[in-house]
Amino acid sequence: MSTSARGGDDAAAPAPYRVGLLGSGTVGGAFAELLAERADEIERFNGRRPVISGVLTRTRGDFEEILAEADVIVELMGGIEPARSHLLSAMRAGKDVVSANKQLLSQYGEELFGTARERGVRLRFEAAVAGAVPVVRVLEESLSATPIDRIHGIVNGTTNFILSEMTNGSSYAQALAEAQRRGFAEADPSDDVSGRDAAAKMAILARLAFGTPVHLQDVPYEGIEHLHGDDLEYARELGLGLKLIGTAERRRGGLSVRVHPAFLYSGHPLASVAGPFNAVTVESGTITEITMSGPGAGGPQTASAVLGDVVSVMTGGARPPAPPLPLPLVHDIENAFYLHLDVADRPGVLASVTQVLGEHDVSIRSVVQRGLGEGARLVMVTHPVLESSLRAAVARLSEFEFVRGAPRTIRVIEEEFV
Amino acid sequence: MSTSARGGDDAAAPAPYRVGLLGSGTVGGAFAELLAERADEIERFNGRRPVISGVLTRTRGDFEEILAEADVIVELMGGIEPARSHLLSAMRAGKDVVSANKQLLSQYGEELFGTARERGVRLRFEAAVAGAVPVVRVLEESLSATPIDRIHGIVNGTTNFILSEMTNGSSYAQALAEAQRRGFAEADPSDDVSGRDAAAKMAILARLAFGTPVHLQDVPYEGIEHLHGDDLEYARELGLGLKLIGTAERRRGGLSVRVHPAFLYSGHPLASVAGPFNAVTVESGTITEITMSGPGAGGPQTASAVLGDVVSVMTGGARPPAPPLPLPLVHDIENAFYLHLDVADRPGVLASVTQVLGEHDVSIRSVVQRGLGEGARLVMVTHPVLESSLRAAVARLSEFEFVRGAPRTIRVIEEEFV
Repeated sequence: MSTSARGGDDAAAPAPYRVGLLGSGTVGGAFAELLAERADEIERFNGRRPVISGVLTRTRGDFEEILAEADVIVELMGGIEPARSHLLSAMRAGKDVVSANKQLLSQYGEELFGTARERGVRLRFEAAVAGAVPVVRVLEESLSATPIDRIHGIVNGTTNFILSEMTNGSSYAQALAEAQRRGFAEADPSDDVSGRDAAAKMAILARLAFGTPVHLQDVPYEGIEHLHGDDLEYARELGLGLKLIGTAERRRGGLSVRVHPAFLYSGHPLASVAGPFNAVTVESGTITEITMSGPGAGGPQTASAVLGDVVSVMTGGARPPAPPLPLPLVHDIENAFYLHLDVADRPGVLASVTQVLGEHDVSIRSVVQRGLGEGARLVMVTHPVLESSLRAAVARLSEFEFVRGAPRTIRVIEEEFV
Repeated sequence: MSTSARGGDDAAAPAPYRVGLLGSGTVGGAFAELLAERADEIERFNGRRPVISGVLTRTRGDFEEILAEADVIVELMGGIEPARSHLLSAMRAGKDVVSANKQLLSQYGEELFGTARERGVRLRFEAAVAGAVPVVRVLEESLSATPIDRIHGIVNGTTNFILSEMTNGSSYAQALAEAQRRGFAEADPSDDVSGRDAAAKMAILARLAFGTPVHLQDVPYEGIEHLHGDDLEYARELGLGLKLIGTAERRRGGLSVRVHPAFLYSGHPLASVAGPFNAVTVESGTITEITMSGPGAGGPQTASAVLGDVVSVMTGGARPPAPPLPLPLVHDIENAFYLHLDVADRPGVLASVTQVLGEHDVSIRSVVQRGLGEGARLVMVTHPVLESSLRAAVARLSEFEFVRGAPRTIRVIEEEFV
């Protein structure tokens, strides 16, 4: 009997599919384990058996040797270098590659896509966005058939967990501590809570959905650190969700990609997504909208997405990326806003505020004024208005001596479908 | 200049990808239109341009000629024959095929899958289940990497619309009339409201997710015609959703596939799916759960899903189906139940009821008794219990002279994740 336990009993059995693995951290380990566990089933369904033919860690393994012996390179090292160089070398050697590296894809995506296209190899990265939620595959493979108008995503589980806790009455500090205790937030959470992590993922999704090169630095982002309990209380009272939302959409003849907290009307498919979950809504005239949701990245989820990519490449179920079709990136767009002002409670204040807003084309949809000791609180929701106009109006309002503290603004996403 | 408007200006341009279309009804027309609209974009992304090379209608076209000139056959005729014969002939001629025909796939799936496997051709059918929601593709391509435990689906938009209307206070008759008025229900709605349409779709999903042949006739189904306003009121009071749910899950060493109304706890991802929408939740130890939702079948949604399949086949992004791995089909499984009894209001009734339930191993989780004129209403929720035990207990209860009318039972799905 052959030493190869499977396949050895049949001379015609196809050769195993050799996976060169770069990185052996949490995700790398989970991937190797899942691959071993699922190898029988994958062979049964697809005819070939995936095996790990080499592993590169920080201290062991030689990249060139691993590359020479692999049919596919799976990069789970994270960070920019040496991940970038290794992926480029692998593709230049004609090898398909799979990566879960959102930093790399959001910053060097065009270089990677260009190299894959040039060499006619596949580059898959389902795990880079939204863990096991198959949003990358769905966008990539439905792309040709469906002209996409807009993507909204909750693509950072840490901030969604924190906002869910705050909605239930926790302070930001309490919610963050709880997220850290439960392993949903890093010791240094700044990449998550600042919105930067979500911006990297939206750059990747925007590239896929619209075929336009979008670099992380093209994506303006605003985090959740500055949100007040007041804002969440307001959301709760009105039955709104308050979420950190990434958006990529066609606007004013171009593409707008951004990340910011937003109030969502209760009928919006993302409004009910709670806890450390991710969800993405894709809107198109043809399909109306579809929503995909599930747990954000964790070791097993990421490993599952990576293995799905490996199987997909092994079975020919992927193709090299299409050439880019650049759309201009648009930054000043219309949005409805929630505007929160603490003011002195005296005659004429509301009149002055509304006059300034009117001068800047900010039209008010609803306003609530409440007494607050010797002051008053004005909470307004505007009709859609250019962000630059709203910012100019707010700057002007800040100059009034009756305005106390900085005015606060949060965008409002209106649900058009329900 | 060549008569081929595109590609003619470049001698090296690849040949167009020829689509033979069977059927020219609503979906066929929408598909042909969408294909023409998206052909440029598809060619840009994939290098080949899809064109309709022939159309078979009831009165025009010759199947053999269309087959000979096509690279792929797209079947949008519906019904069993001649759709089945044409698809089999096409595959035997070595052609890839795309179909949106849920009746055919749920009744002749193994014959079709077997033929595709034998001939090494692709058979795609995204549009057969849940319209543009990419559940077929996700199950098919994630299958190898993810051992699936359970699928729950709202796979019939008509019944989900009717139940949403009933939740808002309409009677069944009013809700059905409104669904018909808005084009969400057929003049003869029996295929939808009986649960049979959903059963066909669950047979297809179960085959995909578990690799086990499941025939429409293996799927027990129960519809929504017998639901009372009382049941929906109960759901509203307790914050539960009442939905027509299709389930396919590993149970007792086998596979259980079924369709029935069910109460869902409010945290369940399907509880908030309202209106004529479809949604499917896939559960697995590896990925926890993912949910996909969107509009159910409509002409444009179906056309979009079919075109996605065509592009996928054209670009090699699909493979012949895997051989089946039969699991025994299990019918008698444990479920929590809601049990509604109208009884005479006199001493000893509750004691008699609970004794009978106890004798049949039905353990009660909660009970509410309400006066009702000279009678009383008992609403109980049980702990999970074998369906056969519950049915035996209910049969026994029906024999009591103090029980008025038939006892009503509805399954309860408990959310384990939230």
